[in-house]
Amino acid sequence: MSLCIVAGSANPNLAEAVAAGVGGVAMRSGLERFPDGELCPVVGPMRGDDVYVLQPTTPPVNEHLMELALLLDACRRAGSTRVTAVVPYFGYARQDRRSRPGQAIGARVVADILAAAGADRIIVVDPHTPGFEATCSIPVEVLTATSVLVTALRNRETSGSVVVAPDLGAVKLAERFAATLGLPVAVVRKSRTSGTSVRAEELVGDVVGRRPIIVDDMISTGATIEATARFLESHGALPQTVVAATHALLLEAAPERLDQLGLARLLVTDTVPPSNDLPILEVCSVAALLSDAIGRLHREEPLDDLARFE
Amino acid sequence: MSLCIVAGSANPNLAEAVAAGVGGVAMRSGLERFPDGELCPVVGPMRGDDVYVLQPTTPPVNEHLMELALLLDACRRAGSTRVTAVVPYFGYARQDRRSRPGQAIGARVVADILAAAGADRIIVVDPHTPGFEATCSIPVEVLTATSVLVTALRNRETSGSVVVAPDLGAVKLAERFAATLGLPVAVVRKSRTSGTSVRAEELVGDVVGRRPIIVDDMISTGATIEATARFLESHGALPQTVVAATHALLLEAAPERLDQLGLARLLVTDTVPPSNDLPILEVCSVAALLSDAIGRLHREEPLDDLARFE
Amino acid sequence: MSLCIVAGSANPNLAEAVAAGVGGVAMRSGLERFPDGELCPVVGPMRGDDVYVLQPTTPPVNEHLMELALLLDACRRAGSTRVTAVVPYFGYARQDRRSRPGQAIGARVVADILAAAGADRIIVVDPHTPGFEATCSIPVEVLTATSVLVTALRNRETSGSVVVAPDLGAVKLAERFAATLGLPVAVVRKSRTSGTSVRAEELVGDVVGRRPIIVDDMISTGATIEATARFLESHGALPQTVVAATHALLLEAAPERLDQLGLARLLVTDTVPPSNDLPILEVCSVAALLSDAIGRLHREEPLDDLARFE
Amino acid sequence: MSLCIVAGSANPNLAEAVAAGVGGVAMRSGLERFPDGELCPVVGPMRGDDVYVLQPTTPPVNEHLMELALLLDACRRAGSTRVTAVVPYFGYARQDRRSRPGQAIGARVVADILAAAGADRIIVVDPHTPGFEATCSIPVEVLTATSVLVTALRNRETSGSVVVAPDLGAVKLAERFAATLGLPVAVVRKSRTSGTSVRAEELVGDVVGRRPIIVDDMISTGATIEATARFLESHGALPQTVVAATHALLLEAAPERLDQLGLARLLVTDTVPPSNDLPILEVCSVAALLSDAIGRLHREEPLDDLARFE
Amino acid sequence: MSLCIVAGSANPNLAEAVAAGVGGVAMRSGLERFPDGELCPVVGPMRGDDVYVLQPTTPPVNEHLMELALLLDACRRAGSTRVTAVVPYFGYARQDRRSRPGQAIGARVVADILAAAGADRIIVVDPHTPGFEATCSIPVEVLTATSVLVTALRNRETSGSVVVAPDLGAVKLAERFAATLGLPVAVVRKSRTSGTSVRAEELVGDVVGRRPIIVDDMISTGATIEATARFLESHGALPQTVVAATHALLLEAAPERLDQLGLARLLVTDTVPPSNDLPILEVCSVAALLSDAIGRLHREEPLDDLARFE
Amino acid sequence: MSLCIVAGSANPNLAEAVAAGVGGVAMRSGLERFPDGELCPVVGPMRGDDVYVLQPTTPPVNEHLMELALLLDACRRAGSTRVTAVVPYFGYARQDRRSRPGQAIGARVVADILAAAGADRIIVVDPHTPGFEATCSIPVEVLTATSVLVTALRNRETSGSVVVAPDLGAVKLAERFAATLGLPVAVVRKSRTSGTSVRAEELVGDVVGRRPIIVDDMISTGATIEATARFLESHGALPQTVVAATHALLLEAAPERLDQLGLARLLVTDTVPPSNDLPILEVCSVAALLSDAIGRLHREEPLDDLARFE
Repeated sequence: MSLCIVAGSANPNLAEAVAAGVGGVAMRSGLERFPDGELCPVVGPMRGDDVYVLQPTTPPVNEHLMELALLLDACRRAGSTRVTAVVPYFGYARQDRRSRPGQAIGARVVADILAAAGADRIIVVDPHTPGFEATCSIPVEVLTATSVLVTALRNRETSGSVVVAPDLGAVKLAERFAATLGLPVAVVRKSRTSGTSVRAEELVGDVVGRRPIIVDDMISTGATIEATARFLESHGALPQTVVAATHALLLEAAPERLDQLGLARLLVTDTVPPSNDLPILEVCSVAALLSDAIGRLHREEPLDDLARFE
Repeated sequence: MSLCIVAGSANPNLAEAVAAGVGGVAMRSGLERFPDGELCPVVGPMRGDDVYVLQPTTPPVNEHLMELALLLDACRRAGSTRVTAVVPYFGYARQDRRSRPGQAIGARVVADILAAAGADRIIVVDPHTPGFEATCSIPVEVLTATSVLVTALRNRETSGSVVVAPDLGAVKLAERFAATLGLPVAVVRKSRTSGTSVRAEELVGDVVGRRPIIVDDMISTGATIEATARFLESHGALPQTVVAATHALLLEAAPERLDQLGLARLLVTDTVPPSNDLPILEVCSVAALLSDAIGRLHREEPLDDLARFE
Repeated sequence: MSLCIVAGSANPNLAEAVAAGVGGVAMRSGLERFPDGELCPVVGPMRGDDVYVLQPTTPPVNEHLMELALLLDACRRAGSTRVTAVVPYFGYARQDRRSRPGQAIGARVVADILAAAGADRIIVVDPHTPGFEATCSIPVEVLTATSVLVTALRNRETSGSVVVAPDLGAVKLAERFAATLGLPVAVVRKSRTSGTSVRAEELVGDVVGRRPIIVDDMISTGATIEATARFLESHGALPQTVVAATHALLLEAAPERLDQLGLARLLVTDTVPPSNDLPILEVCSVAALLSDAIGRLHREEPLDDLARFE
Repeated sequence: MSLCIVAGSANPNLAEAVAAGVGGVAMRSGLERFPDGELCPVVGPMRGDDVYVLQPTTPPVNEHLMELALLLDACRRAGSTRVTAVVPYFGYARQDRRSRPGQAIGARVVADILAAAGADRIIVVDPHTPGFEATCSIPVEVLTATSVLVTALRNRETSGSVVVAPDLGAVKLAERFAATLGLPVAVVRKSRTSGTSVRAEELVGDVVGRRPIIVDDMISTGATIEATARFLESHGALPQTVVAATHALLLEAAPERLDQLGLARLLVTDTVPPSNDLPILEVCSVAALLSDAIGRLHREEPLDDLARFE
Repeated sequence: MSLCIVAGSANPNLAEAVAAGVGGVAMRSGLERFPDGELCPVVGPMRGDDVYVLQPTTPPVNEHLMELALLLDACRRAGSTRVTAVVPYFGYARQDRRSRPGQAIGARVVADILAAAGADRIIVVDPHTPGFEATCSIPVEVLTATSVLVTALRNRETSGSVVVAPDLGAVKLAERFAATLGLPVAVVRKSRTSGTSVRAEELVGDVVGRRPIIVDDMISTGATIEATARFLESHGALPQTVVAATHALLLEAAPERLDQLGLARLLVTDTVPPSNDLPILEVCSVAALLSDAIGRLHREEPLDDLARFE
Repeated sequence: MSLCIVAGSANPNLAEAVAAGVGGVAMRSGLERFPDGELCPVVGPMRGDDVYVLQPTTPPVNEHLMELALLLDACRRAGSTRVTAVVPYFGYARQDRRSRPGQAIGARVVADILAAAGADRIIVVDPHTPGFEATCSIPVEVLTATSVLVTALRNRETSGSVVVAPDLGAVKLAERFAATLGLPVAVVRKSRTSGTSVRAEELVGDVVGRRPIIVDDMISTGATIEATARFLESHGALPQTVVAATHALLLEAAPERLDQLGLARLLVTDTVPPSNDLPILEVCSVAALLSDAIGRLHREEPLDDLARFE
């Protein structure tokens, strides 16, 4: 059973790097697009292979998701022995519950689509909720980019810093960073007032005279980061804030917002193809993480500390 | 079990008209869109209802398709007793086979998505292939807009005309039109040289001195219609060509292309929201067809001649 | 379709009360138990009925769970038209993720068992995690006993109190209580050191001079409540602590533990059959909540504010 | 994973030849038949094998189909690792749509039966419709006997011939033959008046002075071939018609019908066990095609040009 | 939801009688048969109906089984609300285990076919094994013709008789007859030496001077009855043997065999269309049993004593 | 694909012996039990392995069953390639039919639970009913301990003995023993009057002056054995009765009951962990049988005579 990496169109550079990491070349699926927008991906010969389709469902999320579903079906029909959907950033993961009557559970719908299209297994990196794998009917390997980001944090001095969770959902993440870095944790309890505007509220832990390292799983519009940074400053934290997050969607005004904050560092990974608009952005690649994980899965070895449990 | 019509965002006007036709109001689903493009539709109270979600998967096809899947899931969770996906124009229907190695079968993927998301049944109008319903694991009701278009054709003189199928796939459709109108049939055997450029080839049947009525299931870029019209003219047909098709996607240069042809009439339906760019366009609504069909299905009556069998 | 309430053996009193609330009598399933412990429940005639099987999976959880699965199968074979598993307390709900390699996801296993056994729908009350419904392949109605407990809290003075979440997982619950009662919120960030021993850590919010109302979804061994109460006292809260929780498992030394705390009130519901060992226990029945919800579901009406969304 | 060819009773000679082609012996399943007609096939040891069950569903189609389903179940229970149903002639494939209200979709029913019985994959040769694989929930490999027949056609002079499609459904097939042979194509548009009587109608293309090579996927009662041959003759074609078709069912009066036509050649394959009643019949075996395909599938190699895409 | 009885071709007279019993007319499905033996049943309008397809899978069992599967699919696609397969005689029921390596489990294959084709429920009469319903994934109602046969037995004197089970598998059946008739039971332990020849062996119970009433679920070739009758005679039983069995397949030499035995009575039912070759045959119709059961199921009433439990 | 034996908590000694037999060590799953009785098993690294989870569902049956389901899910998520549930004693197997209205079919419910939890295959030893494998949707390998027990019987003189089936259900088992030992068979027809009290009735075969070897698949409360032994004695059998049974549940008063009978030998296996309360008990291990079977299955070899067919 040979290893085969298939690159969807959402992040071909990462797929190339991952393929190189396992000692191969990513198969670029031909992606025809009909005049009405219907996608028609085509994969090369892969009969009997152990196939990994790399496609984060970054924006435009619905396009990338449908391409992924079609790729999975194509791989199955092409005679692959096993197909793993590698979705470093998994769109719709936040829709794991109905927050008001009449909604769908988007995470479940998407998970069911991938299973119906032929995925045998899913790999994700730092999904938004800890219960993500329970949402999928097929096995999920949850990887974490924490060690990738920690390594990058460590290449500069971090003593005197404090790891800050910008909301309650990020507390466990902050604790993982703090434990590895030997730093204290602080938590900001926020209340979101609308989709793009955020109001910070309460501070748990001590930040006075400390340099904050704000950690989160993703940066969407940057509003949460902005509010948190300003809030910390007003509560006595040192300037020179550091931000570390796995998924850098950087939507809408995010580049401008983050640029104005005077951040010391802004560390993200390349689960989402990195923006060129933010000079401060330091991109830590998850390629080695993914190629390591895929190599182990292909050789049927344990994932050990690449995986995230909580 | 009350009847409930849910309007997706792809064609709300048609949904309104259909709802009015069955004596009700279409429930407009709230459609939130997150900054990253994730959709979050919300439906109103419908517990115990017999629900019909009207959403043609017109371009942008992947957006409309995901919205439909989420709507179906939302309806199921909201306690509806039966959910029918009403997809007057069904995108991806042409991808019902692999035309070369490594492709997916898009029609099957989409049909499986709708079933996985919670549809109990599908209604389509004039799908591209006769074997469409065999592709779906759930029951499909195939309706036809032929009578809608025939009625509109009949409100002007058609004697001396000839019904023309622009390719072999449209022959059965042409025969249905011809039988009803009492006209002869001609067929153009074409060979498609690329996605948007079409070369007409051979003529079957007599068109000399006759006014052509070109019929097809859909108009995409208009290239097929253009080539057929010019071909017929060069083979002795009268000018004043009439065109009748169910689905008017009118993509890319289609409006200009069709405008230049000097057509006598251009009859289409509103399965796709009609373009305003083509003054010649005569839009024959399928609202009555759909409300008639939905009313019968809701009352558990036979569809009779609304359905298409071939 | 008649309404039929089936009482499993886990909480027959609650089933009786629920049945009375909808104007009927609970069908007591005969529960034969073979010498080797195999269960053999028997249900009465229910052909064509809309059946609600009430069985919280309280300890002994595996016995009650298997009885529930067999009851669901029995109802299906007896010709019921629709079967809803009413599981006010849902065991294994906390196992919604793997917290270390090699574990199962118990919540998913149990949800799949209920679906395989024939449940069409599940009703739960205050499950441990907000993503619970995404774990189930069948629709879930999540009810909340918050208003039941709030009503009981209000029959004594609560001004000058503070609602306390004993850990981060209870913050949203605390906020719901606080919003209704018009009180502030405080949060204790705990770190659990073992299954039964708990060490409290940090306080968010102001409790000095205020009477704490500790709220949680469940009381298991009482260790969390004990640690929280002592922690609050040592941080300046008034004595006369009030505790309100939906599920009162009261395992192991819980009665003694709670008895020693000198609580002002200890409010719980009867999702779990109430203990007689704790004189201070005030049991607020969820029977009206469940009979209201079941009645609406049977009549196909919206659940409105009985349901919990977050 | 060893290769194992299982021979059903429908075409054991072909199975033997296929097995010999891959360097083995076909396992003849013992086929007990009870007095009431129930079948009871028995397979030999095959634990862990890659099994190919060869059984065209030729007449008596229902007998052969049930035998196939039972064989698949037997293989699964015998511990085979992968089971491929090799169905060179696939009965019921023509029932891929409802041609009037109240019908079943036989092709889908049969595909579902094979999947339910345990097939992991299906191999067919020249199925009646291009959308056949979309009908099956499991992957399908569509092979074509075109090159087998073309090779046989080429062993005599074909210049001056014209490839004729006897109806619109055979046009693509005719085009494939014509492209390979470097010949023109003609099409007869027929209208079927009843199951066994056929009336030819219109001719597309030039046949005057040319020797027709009528090609079709199957010969059932021979009525289509007869009508086409006579029609071509009356339109100026040379006599000495050649006929080439994949599946030679030769039902009812087919042998007599074809015998009277004075055909130059009648080329068919052995997907259906060949009749002995027609001296003119030239049988071109698909054994090499199938053993080549099975060998590649077993070794996980691409099928390349053995497969048919359209 | 209207009641609709669909008559397959296996036993239309029984279907007519059943339909008359519930106050209606059986819908005769049109059954087209193509030249190659493919079946194409067609049902009439039944949208929203509660449909009962009556088709025992009598010989030719595979023909009748495929017709039943196609009928079920046709009913589902025709919009029926619920489809019950009424299979009074269920072929392949005896293949409920593998009696040697390499066999299929035919009963399971057939049950899965009916479920895949769209049956919601199955009704059978006196299946061969008590565990039959556990073999089916959909609910099964097991009816018994015991009371029908007992009533007929009672219209002549039975005192001084003994109910005889011709093998161990018929003991429970014999006990049911004996309990109702107030007679003793005897059992013959047989060992089957081949499919059609049977050797009787041992007698349990007293038959001397008593008139035997041999009861069984089915008469296939009559060999068992013949051997039993001769064995009983040789062990002192009175001549004038009575035979009562539900399913009268009467295969091969059964009519001659039974004719020669000088039986006093030969009571069977019409689950299988009755033979005309045996003057002694007394046919007790199960029409009233079936129409009673169907009527109750349609009205959602308990089956009570029509059902068989053991 | 490495072989991995996982030991559930129901019979770890047997698992150890089985693992040693295949040349390995049983992986002891960590089994955490929460205060409320929820189980949380944890398995070690097994990615890519061929896993056999050994867990008979002995009493407490529901505990052991849930542990097994959770273990299967854990193995699937841990990346095992194939998971076989080895359930030497399969609880609920007797509930393979409804013996009165309103019951469940427990055997089917349990089989569905194991399949839903992730088992690919089941191994059982001497299940209660011959149709057991038809109840499971996944393949079942039915092993028999007959040869294990026969070998033990043969180590003492058996001439002059008679093999006795204590009821009709055990006749085939008795015949297998008798054929191997060269002994005659006798059958006791019993009628069970309640769950624990049994009344013997009729004797088939000759036991006078012979030493009975009573064989059965399981000993539950010992009531059947006691009644049979006393009945045989009163019908002229020699004392010194021998008893041989596969599954020794020995529930309730079984040890005392059996102790009082003055049995010559009491042979059982260790599918159930053996009791220490009965000095006469001779335990014949099935470890070699299971390790032989598992070794063959792992190496993809036929099971041959280890398997039971009937």
